[in-house]
Amino acid sequence: MHAKISQTNNREVDTMKTLIQGVKGARDFYPEEMAFRSWLYGKLANVSNRFGYQEYDGPFLEKIELYAAKSGEELVKEQSFVFPDRGGELITLRPELTPSLARMVAARQNELVFPLRWWSFGPFWRYERPQKGRSREFFQWNIDLVGANSREADAEMLAVACTFFKDVGLSPKEVAIAINDRELMEAELLSVGISSEKLMDVYRLIDRREKMSPENWTNYASEIGLTTDQLTSIKGLLANTQLWRNSPALTYIFELLNAQGLADYITYDPNIIRGLDYYTGIVFEARDMEGGRAIFGGGRYNNLVSDVGGQPTGGLGFAMGDVVIKLTLEKYDKLPRINLSPARILVTVFDDASIKASVLLAYQLRTAGLNVELYPEVVKLAKQFKYADRKQINYILVLGPDEVMAGNVTIKDLAKGLQTTIPVSLVVDYLHKTLDE
Amino acid sequence: MHAKISQTNNREVDTMKTLIQGVKGARDFYPEEMAFRSWLYGKLANVSNRFGYQEYDGPFLEKIELYAAKSGEELVKEQSFVFPDRGGELITLRPELTPSLARMVAARQNELVFPLRWWSFGPFWRYERPQKGRSREFFQWNIDLVGANSREADAEMLAVACTFFKDVGLSPKEVAIAINDRELMEAELLSVGISSEKLMDVYRLIDRREKMSPENWTNYASEIGLTTDQLTSIKGLLANTQLWRNSPALTYIFELLNAQGLADYITYDPNIIRGLDYYTGIVFEARDMEGGRAIFGGGRYNNLVSDVGGQPTGGLGFAMGDVVIKLTLEKYDKLPRINLSPARILVTVFDDASIKASVLLAYQLRTAGLNVELYPEVVKLAKQFKYADRKQINYILVLGPDEVMAGNVTIKDLAKGLQTTIPVSLVVDYLHKTLDE
Repeated sequence: MHAKISQTNNREVDTMKTLIQGVKGARDFYPEEMAFRSWLYGKLANVSNRFGYQEYDGPFLEKIELYAAKSGEELVKEQSFVFPDRGGELITLRPELTPSLARMVAARQNELVFPLRWWSFGPFWRYERPQKGRSREFFQWNIDLVGANSREADAEMLAVACTFFKDVGLSPKEVAIAINDRELMEAELLSVGISSEKLMDVYRLIDRREKMSPENWTNYASEIGLTTDQLTSIKGLLANTQLWRNSPALTYIFELLNAQGLADYITYDPNIIRGLDYYTGIVFEARDMEGGRAIFGGGRYNNLVSDVGGQPTGGLGFAMGDVVIKLTLEKYDKLPRINLSPARILVTVFDDASIKASVLLAYQLRTAGLNVELYPEVVKLAKQFKYADRKQINYILVLGPDEVMAGNVTIKDLAKGLQTTIPVSLVVDYLHKTLDE
Repeated sequence: MHAKISQTNNREVDTMKTLIQGVKGARDFYPEEMAFRSWLYGKLANVSNRFGYQEYDGPFLEKIELYAAKSGEELVKEQSFVFPDRGGELITLRPELTPSLARMVAARQNELVFPLRWWSFGPFWRYERPQKGRSREFFQWNIDLVGANSREADAEMLAVACTFFKDVGLSPKEVAIAINDRELMEAELLSVGISSEKLMDVYRLIDRREKMSPENWTNYASEIGLTTDQLTSIKGLLANTQLWRNSPALTYIFELLNAQGLADYITYDPNIIRGLDYYTGIVFEARDMEGGRAIFGGGRYNNLVSDVGGQPTGGLGFAMGDVVIKLTLEKYDKLPRINLSPARILVTVFDDASIKASVLLAYQLRTAGLNVELYPEVVKLAKQFKYADRKQINYILVLGPDEVMAGNVTIKDLAKGLQTTIPVSLVVDYLHKTLDE
């Protein structure tokens, strides 16, 4: 083996170099993947704008203390990328946006116009074992309404979520949004003898039920100090799908959603409690009806702005990752078909003598507002035609010596299999008309 | 002091908490800042599409070895965020995109359709001292043409750059693109007796001339082993603005740009060499004509794909940061005026009895394709009007008990100071017509 390698020439050694690999769980967005991300961005921008939400973004790096108090222990300590700044301070690659939102609201609380409606779509990082539906780098849509502590605000956020599903073609048979209210759960838990100091522990217990075996879950319950009677009561609450009737707030929210014809997407589920510590009111989770995978989650957080040093200001919102919604759309055959070439016109180059005419033609078409590729070197026309075919470009323009001499251009329509030669002066009108068909 | 604090109630203590601060050099994108970022994205997406470039993106995290060889020592060792993965491997927050592009091309070299035209807009990180025009987190437009090693390709990339300037309203009096060619410089340097092993050192020397005092620069030259004669020869080359006439390639590129009426933006400058080690052909830098601040830079890199383990494939491109282009647009009064409210219509809520009618009206208007805010809680109308005014929302819809009873809605046009009451059934048509005016 060694002898063989030493005999190869430099070029061959070069090509035997190992390819440098990307980071595990990070993603390459080739044009196909990027087209989906941009399509998704367009869809959620559209829904967000329709409800009057303004686009914003937080920074990608935040100090760890921003998350330390309220994001839930697991998320910060076990699932975030944390590293020391050169100054020694601990920096986090943002695992979620809500704490940044709270910090930004607190920092300009006297200038901002409330209620504020903000949305964002950007990258987030979690140090998780890569698996289907999860990656270490992911994109997330965040949408929040801050400064309105009302049931109308709660209903609006749920209407945004339902409208998004409608817009991407997911029906109530395929996805549902399960809702609960921590205020209702607090009242119910207190009424069965859970002390208020234990509430957060019990929320965590409820949140983990699906992720644990029944035995482990029962053990976890006794570890946090619940008696067998208390656990039985809690199980009773979690089995009661009519519990919402005890909550005038939930009843009213369901009424408002019903008035908008969106109630088909909504279910009540006392098991929805959400893992983040900062929720104080309604909590909700969208799920795939088949298999139950969570698509997005959110809720009301009335103390978060004051937790980061601001004046008390309530808000609510939700966050949806790009990976899970893509899997869901794929499963129900709702992925968009996107043409990956922004240009539908290719100007070919014939030879060194006529190339300047091709450059000029491409320039004229672009100036007229058309998206145009110019083949960027002189190669055989057949190769340029093959390129157009592989890129799904429909119109090929040829400027050979004959055409240049006569002031003409030949247009090949690959889709229709037609070919025509017209004066260069008419080509802009011709293409505009043909592309509009 | 202690006594005073202990006398305050909990609420006051709460508001005395220190606000949590963001990370130095990271940026909060409030809606104003975000509106510029989105506007810029739209502009460069438009230019990129017009030339037929496909959108893509790399991951945000890469292994340090991807940059180690070719990005230039300073960029990787001194200016990048590098931290150990939990497995101990060194991870980098991407300081630039070109190495990721090369890695992605190498990984799918047999499937991709060449020549490929790709563009991207996303976040990057450099560990720099925050200063005007620089931040540690910044956004960058990257655009590249890979797989065409031709002067036509070089000219196209420069045409993209010029067209972008045209599109955002920056004239050749305000900005210029200075060009050079490393192949030309190599020939010229060899001809004055510089050995080929010293070329990279001399490129670095040329790149640093503007950043150093003349004395330090002369000392640096002797440190890398140049004789006084050699330095004099180099200074002669760098003063010769007609050097491009020795290059048939540059002469031809200028000709092509001239044919497209873009030559006004272009200048030749033998001092342009660029700091990145991977450039092999033309190099260029756009600059503010007043003050000379660099706006973007790029060039040809024919060995980069093979350097990361792929087959030899040439390419070229450039990258532009969002901060510097914003400063330049600001300086020449070319910043866009953007209305920050996506909705131009506010549906107010009158009282608990009529609120459902307001919710329903907002729903109907949105279903008809209008962007509409619903005021999300029952407060005095005066407060809702003030909100609309501060958000620059033009049309306010009121549904009080009288309107609900009669099936009407009152529309206030804040800009024109008009008020009219019409049947609810006509409101969609009315608003569509008024908004189109």
